[in-house]
Amino acid sequence: MDRPLQDVFKVHCFGCGALNTHGLQIKSRWEGDDMLCNWKPEPYHIGHPGYVYGGTIASVIDCHSIWTALAHYCRETGHALDDGPPPFAFVTGSLKVDYLKPVPIDGEMELRARVLEKGERKTIIGCRVLHSGIECATAEAVAVRVRLGA
Amino acid sequence: MDRPLQDVFKVHCFGCGALNTHGLQIKSRWEGDDMLCNWKPEPYHIGHPGYVYGGTIASVIDCHSIWTALAHYCRETGHALDDGPPPFAFVTGSLKVDYLKPVPIDGEMELRARVLEKGERKTIIGCRVLHSGIECATAEAVAVRVRLGA
Repeated sequence: MDRPLQDVFKVHCFGCGALNTHGLQIKSRWEGDDMLCNWKPEPYHIGHPGYVYGGTIASVIDCHSIWTALAHYCRETGHALDDGPPPFAFVTGSLKVDYLKPVPIDGEMELRARVLEKGERKTIIGCRVLHSGIECATAEAVAVRVRLGA
Repeated sequence: MDRPLQDVFKVHCFGCGALNTHGLQIKSRWEGDDMLCNWKPEPYHIGHPGYVYGGTIASVIDCHSIWTALAHYCRETGHALDDGPPPFAFVTGSLKVDYLKPVPIDGEMELRARVLEKGERKTIIGCRVLHSGIECATAEAVAVRVRLGA
């Protein structure tokens, strides 16, 4: 599947929902075992002048990590997102971001995430944030699988 | 000082800048040794339907924690924000959020932050997020003091 996951399974989330016109609308796609996200901030996504706001960086990481956990679980269980919404979802149990360098507001951020550990309900995802090839932040997210509906 | 800190020292940050018309415009004020923030999300700040997006929660925590570190340092060093921008700033070194319960999108979030530990350059801030009196998230932020200008 070459299309970004969020264009296949459309949701309303502020961070990743294709249906949220106010939101960040990040796009995540497989690249081997990594999940890749390229995202360009708007000029108003600044924290200190000239640099991307840390809360926005955390937001992009949060959604991208959750989609990584979801996509990984779909791949393992043979659920194709093209067939419709999965009967499960992932929510963020915890998120830890280490900010190593400021991320310039100009240009794209690149996020690379992968599954570090997979338990029965919890998946731990590691995520790196790069700008112009330089690692600016690293993060670890714990995604918790929940069942939807009855 | 009864006014929110962000109305005294106005910045452009997406999370807390009074000058950022696209941003969250959070407001932080002293209440004893706690720093208090009441913030009402817009309907589009959702993650899963009905609940506040975790990235937005992390964003509000991030800014509120940084202002807590700044205000604490100002109070210790006798710098009054009314007198003008301080010659130092705080940036986020790391942020860890534990999401305990989903935060309903309706109504206000209340954040209570306080300084847990103060080093030469690093201040560790603990922050709780409540909704209708129920603790929904806890967080720890490491704020790093940087000097501005020459």
